[in-house]
Amino acid sequence: MTVRELCERARKAAPALACASEDLRNGALRAMGEALRAGMKTVLAANAEDIARARENGVPEPMIDRLSLNEARVEAMAAGAENVSLLPDPLAGGEEFTRPNGLVITKKPVPFGVIAIIYEARPNVTADAAALCIKSGNAVVLRGGSEAINSNLAIAKIISRALETAGLPGECVCAVEDTTRAAANELMRMKGLVDLLIPRGGKALIRAVVDNATVPVIETGAGNCHVFIDSSADKETALAVLENAKCSRPSVCNAAESLLVCRDRAKELLPLIRGRMPRVELRGDAETLSVLPDIKPATEEDFYTEYNDYILSVKVVGDVYEAVAHINEHGTHHSDCIITRDESNAAYFLSHVDSAAVYHNASTRFTDGGEFGFGAEIGISTQKLHARGPMGLKEMTTYKYVVRGNGQIREK
Amino acid sequence: MTVRELCERARKAAPALACASEDLRNGALRAMGEALRAGMKTVLAANAEDIARARENGVPEPMIDRLSLNEARVEAMAAGAENVSLLPDPLAGGEEFTRPNGLVITKKPVPFGVIAIIYEARPNVTADAAALCIKSGNAVVLRGGSEAINSNLAIAKIISRALETAGLPGECVCAVEDTTRAAANELMRMKGLVDLLIPRGGKALIRAVVDNATVPVIETGAGNCHVFIDSSADKETALAVLENAKCSRPSVCNAAESLLVCRDRAKELLPLIRGRMPRVELRGDAETLSVLPDIKPATEEDFYTEYNDYILSVKVVGDVYEAVAHINEHGTHHSDCIITRDESNAAYFLSHVDSAAVYHNASTRFTDGGEFGFGAEIGISTQKLHARGPMGLKEMTTYKYVVRGNGQIREK
Repeated sequence: MTVRELCERARKAAPALACASEDLRNGALRAMGEALRAGMKTVLAANAEDIARARENGVPEPMIDRLSLNEARVEAMAAGAENVSLLPDPLAGGEEFTRPNGLVITKKPVPFGVIAIIYEARPNVTADAAALCIKSGNAVVLRGGSEAINSNLAIAKIISRALETAGLPGECVCAVEDTTRAAANELMRMKGLVDLLIPRGGKALIRAVVDNATVPVIETGAGNCHVFIDSSADKETALAVLENAKCSRPSVCNAAESLLVCRDRAKELLPLIRGRMPRVELRGDAETLSVLPDIKPATEEDFYTEYNDYILSVKVVGDVYEAVAHINEHGTHHSDCIITRDESNAAYFLSHVDSAAVYHNASTRFTDGGEFGFGAEIGISTQKLHARGPMGLKEMTTYKYVVRGNGQIREK
Repeated sequence: MTVRELCERARKAAPALACASEDLRNGALRAMGEALRAGMKTVLAANAEDIARARENGVPEPMIDRLSLNEARVEAMAAGAENVSLLPDPLAGGEEFTRPNGLVITKKPVPFGVIAIIYEARPNVTADAAALCIKSGNAVVLRGGSEAINSNLAIAKIISRALETAGLPGECVCAVEDTTRAAANELMRMKGLVDLLIPRGGKALIRAVVDNATVPVIETGAGNCHVFIDSSADKETALAVLENAKCSRPSVCNAAESLLVCRDRAKELLPLIRGRMPRVELRGDAETLSVLPDIKPATEEDFYTEYNDYILSVKVVGDVYEAVAHINEHGTHHSDCIITRDESNAAYFLSHVDSAAVYHNASTRFTDGGEFGFGAEIGISTQKLHARGPMGLKEMTTYKYVVRGNGQIREK
C-alpha cells in the first residue's frame, strides 16, 4: 500500500475515533494491553528477525539493545496502554460563554484527526505513541525506522485488531511498511490527509522535516541545555545540580551539554567540577583553559553541539547578561538553568532566556511529561507554536468553537 | 536593507518588548495613537502617491477604495491602537503548580518573539497588526503589498518613532521596503529569526506560504462556508440565516459560499430562497436544477470555490450524514452551519464537521474576534495547530515553563 493510500484509510477511519466516547477509547486501550500480552510470541518472533538482520548488518551493540524486545518490555507496553486508559480524558470539558445576542459558544477540545509520527530505533514507541493517540481521539500513521520494521508492523497489527475488537476501525492505527526516505518524505507532504506530524529522532530527521514538510509539524528533541553558575551560587547546589544535569543520563535531550561559569567563581569552582565528574570530558574556552590547562579547547562549533555523551563544553562569562546572550544564541530553546542566590539575576535569567523550560536552582533533567505530572508524554517540543516543552495528552488536541443559536444573524 | 538584516534588527530588539511591563506596552500604544494623529499629513501624502500610481496602472476602483486613506481612516487607526491599550494583558497570569519534590512550576504566557505578517492592499493593517503585536509583546516585521508601499512605510515609521518616545526600541516594528515576491519568499524562510508567520490574503499567498515557508505559519482566511438546511429546519430561520450568511458581506471569509438542502425540503425552499436573495446567482446540482430549471448548473469545481461575491453553489442532499461528508470533503474548515429543529442531527453535525466554528441555527458571519468577544483579531485561523478560528491577543502568545527549586536533582 502506498503512503497516500494508508493516509487515506487513516483519514477515513479517524472520525469514528474522534467522536468515540471516553469509555470506548479507554476500552480500546485495555483491549490493546490484553492483545499485546496475548500476542507476545508473535511480537518477539518479529523482533528476533529484526535483531538477526541487525547483527548481520554489523549494527553496534548499544543500538541492538535499544532495538531488542523481551517479555518484560512487551509487558511494559501493555501496562503502558492500560495506564493511559486511567488518565483524565483530554477531550472532556471546554470553556463556555454566552454573548449578549444569546449565542452560546463552547471552545471545545477536539482531536487533530490524523497524526503522523516518524521515529527511529525503539519499537516500544509504536505502542506508546499509538496508546496516546487513541486516548486523545487521533488516528495515527506510524513510520518507524527500517531496523525495527518487523517488530513495528507486528505491534501495529495487534493494536489494529484490538481496536476492531473494541468496536473502532482498525485503520485508526496504521504502520508504513515502506522504510525508504522517499516514503518518509511523502508522509511529510500529505497535506489535507495528515493534520499533524511529530518527528522523534536525531538532527538529520528534524532537519529533513523542516525542509520538506508541508503538513503542520511539531519539532521535538534537540536539547543543547545549559547550566549557568552565577556569582552568588551556593557551591554545593551548583555541583550537585550540574552533576545531575550532565551525568544522570547523558543520552537524553534534557541533559546539560554546556556549562557557563561566572568569572569570579571560575578559579574556585572549575577544579571542583572536574573532580566531581571525572568521567566527563570538559572542553573549555580560553579562560577555562587558563584554570584547567590540560583539558581540550572548545571550538565555536562545540558550543552549538548536543553531545548526548559524557562531554561538556565550558565557558567563563562576566555576568548573567552575557550568559543569557550566549544561551539564546547557541542553545536549542529546550531547558536552561541558573544557579544563583541572587533573586534579581534569577528573574532576569528566567524572563530573558527564550527556552521551553527555564530553571532556577534545579536540574534541567526535570523537563519531562512524567516529572511535570502530565502522566504521559509524546515528546518534548522545542518550537513555540501550539506546544512548548513536554507534550502530554492535552497538547495532542486542538479545539473548535461550537456555536448554538436560535436564528441569530449579524447586523453588519 | 535586506530582509535578513531587517529580521536581525527585529530579533535583536524583541527581548526589550517581550519583557516590557504592561504599563510600558500600553504607553507605547497610546504614543502610537498620538503619533498617527500628529502624522496625519505625512500619511495622507504618502497614500496620495500610492493612489496616483494605482490610477496610472489602471487599478480598478474597488481596489483603489480599499487602498485609500482619509482623515477618518487614519483616526480609526489611532483610536484602534488606544482601544488595544485598554484590553486585558495577554501576558498576565499563568498556571502554577507544585510538584511533590517541591519544584514550583509556572506555565507562563510569553510572546513568540518576532512575528512576520504578509498582507495585501489595505494599509490600515500596518497599524492594526502593529498594535496587536506591541500589546502581546511581539516585535513585528510587516510586509504589505506593493500598491500600498508608500502608505505602509510612512505608517510604520511613525509607529517606530512612537515606540522610541515611549522607551522601547523602534526596530520592534519594521516594514519590508522590497515588495518583490523574492523578498516575501525570503521572509518565509527566516528560520531562527522569525518565530511565527501570519499570511493575510488570498489563495495564491496562502499557497506560496505553505509551499515555501520554513518558519512556523498560521494559515488564515480561506472560507468556503456552508449552510445546511435540514429536514426539520424552521423555514423562517433557514431563510433569514442563509440570507445573512450569504448577503450581509459577501467579500469576507465567513460569508456562506455553498448551500446544502435536505431532499424533502428542496421543492418548498429553493424557490423561496431564490425569491429572498434575488441578487445572488445560484449554481445548482442536477436535483436543484430540477426545481429551479433556469439557474446555472454547478460544476464540481464550484463546490470547492470561495466566490467572495453574490454567487452561491447549491446541492440537494439526502440527510445530515451526506451533508457532513460533503462539507468535510469540499470545505476549508472555517465555518459551517446546520439549520434544524432536530437535536440529534444538530449534535451529529456539530461533532462531525471538522471546522474551526460549527453553528446550529445561527449565521456563519459571527466567526470574528469582535463578535466572539475577543476585543481584537489578527486573523481567522483555518489550521488546527496552535489556534483555530478567530485569533485574538491570547493566540499571539506562546508559553514557557518557569521552574523554581532549591537544589532538586532527578533520581533516574
